[in-house]
Amino acid sequence: MIDDLIERMLKGDRRATARLITLVENDEEKAREIVRKIYPLTGNAYIVGVTGPPGAGKSTLLDKLIRVAREEGKIVGVIAIDPTSPFTGGALLGDRIRMQRHSTDPGVFIRSMATRGSLGGLAKATSDAIKVLDAYGCDVIFVETVGVGQIEVDIVKTADTVVMVTVPGLGDDVQAIKAGLMEIADLFVINKADKEGADATYFELNMMLDLEKERWEKRGWRPPIVETVATTMRGIRELWGEVKRHREFLEESGELERKRRFRAQEEVKTIVSGRIARAISERFDEEEVASLIDRIVRREVDPYSAADVVLEKALGVKV
Amino acid sequence: MIDDLIERMLKGDRRATARLITLVENDEEKAREIVRKIYPLTGNAYIVGVTGPPGAGKSTLLDKLIRVAREEGKIVGVIAIDPTSPFTGGALLGDRIRMQRHSTDPGVFIRSMATRGSLGGLAKATSDAIKVLDAYGCDVIFVETVGVGQIEVDIVKTADTVVMVTVPGLGDDVQAIKAGLMEIADLFVINKADKEGADATYFELNMMLDLEKERWEKRGWRPPIVETVATTMRGIRELWGEVKRHREFLEESGELERKRRFRAQEEVKTIVSGRIARAISERFDEEEVASLIDRIVRREVDPYSAADVVLEKALGVKV
Repeated sequence: MIDDLIERMLKGDRRATARLITLVENDEEKAREIVRKIYPLTGNAYIVGVTGPPGAGKSTLLDKLIRVAREEGKIVGVIAIDPTSPFTGGALLGDRIRMQRHSTDPGVFIRSMATRGSLGGLAKATSDAIKVLDAYGCDVIFVETVGVGQIEVDIVKTADTVVMVTVPGLGDDVQAIKAGLMEIADLFVINKADKEGADATYFELNMMLDLEKERWEKRGWRPPIVETVATTMRGIRELWGEVKRHREFLEESGELERKRRFRAQEEVKTIVSGRIARAISERFDEEEVASLIDRIVRREVDPYSAADVVLEKALGVKV
Repeated sequence: MIDDLIERMLKGDRRATARLITLVENDEEKAREIVRKIYPLTGNAYIVGVTGPPGAGKSTLLDKLIRVAREEGKIVGVIAIDPTSPFTGGALLGDRIRMQRHSTDPGVFIRSMATRGSLGGLAKATSDAIKVLDAYGCDVIFVETVGVGQIEVDIVKTADTVVMVTVPGLGDDVQAIKAGLMEIADLFVINKADKEGADATYFELNMMLDLEKERWEKRGWRPPIVETVATTMRGIRELWGEVKRHREFLEESGELERKRRFRAQEEVKTIVSGRIARAISERFDEEEVASLIDRIVRREVDPYSAADVVLEKALGVKV
């Protein structure tokens, strides 16, 4: 079945592609088989993370970025991480519907993923979905998250270029978000730059970047700040140009290679620990776990010996 | 050698006890052996975490708490986590020297641990040092941290009762600390309560607690706020009374049992993942890791198969 789906995907079948993403998202065994088979076909897509607070206009921005990339003939993928937060769900949904105008374009593939389940789970599912879209033939894959939590930060870290979107006048909460994401952003966008307070936001961001001057100088890349009004296309081409300039920087400095190596290593680590956790939960039922914990609390067994028991039973080895 | 040290510790030899703590701190193999041997003797000590920003007077507070506990005939242990931060190192050192007045008292054992090394490392070393002091015969063990980072929060979580110390007029940074620690604090102390602004700090803390009213009601324990002036003993006995009241609450509600079960489970998890990480790093040299990553980046092997290789080589099993 998987071979058939892959074959159809490689012929450009979008439904087969969607089905493969659903499988890597929901089924660990199938994810393993699919990734194993498509992996040799991946590595061509450039991954752009787009993050920022709710209401920053990320989806409209993406809508326009897709257009510009399509004008250059690129095949575009979008993975939109849907926050489970009740505060933002509605608004995003509206935006996403707007973005779906591209869904009749065979050169654009848009996919939503929900932030339910565990941290490792979603980050891993996203990284496997990226592989499917990469194998499908996407040249560029945008990963959109709402930059508030650790989950989103972890996901956006899987990108080659991270674009941080903000808007004028969002107040102090945004400061905190900006501070937390400062380190991982390669590019700042002030969207809705026609609104009052855009200059102040620019000034502020610039000042925050000045504070980290030494770090940028050492690294050879200072994140540029681009002002956009996504609804009118203002600044969108400039933004796309900066994304490409960052890509060139990464390629020429060897940074892209380092990033991808680091990511490969992290991915193996995640798979290894996930697999061990699964082996443990498969071989221990709740009662057994409770009884082992009981024995530790009653001082009949110490935590180190309990760890031996767990490892031996779950993995059949002494470590 | 370890048997000999343990035997001497059980006779009250403080140097042997100090040596055992050094061993659990620095040597994974020996920690395993020591904990295995002393574990049946542990479980009697009550663990009190004391945290708060630098300059809150935690060490002076501890100095007085030790005195009150000693009046009740308790054997007291103190584990002071020394932050590596250059900003606070000096001040703390001074405080610690003041606390050492108890070091001639055979009923008090004070030990500093440095926050170098990894997160898991220090939290685990602290939890093993607690076991040594528990086996030594301590009735109460205070764990003092500077409540700023995740490391400190993880350590303080190993306590039965968490005391959060603050002082009037520390400004906005403290707000952030308070917010982050709000959830794990069982007791708030406003030290230096004779200083201007103590009322405002009380009001503010109380308001923050009001916001979480439902949670406290459900749990059956609302953290009390105690005002102290540690230098003059003001409020110290009241604080000690509140610690004991919290302990009674935990015991009667079954919460203490749940806390300790949870901690036992977390400890086994930490040991398991630490051991696997060690097995991997022992069986792979840097070159092998680099070459495996190379092959992933070159698409010669996929991350799932690489994980298989790692698991098979490190643990000798297919998982």
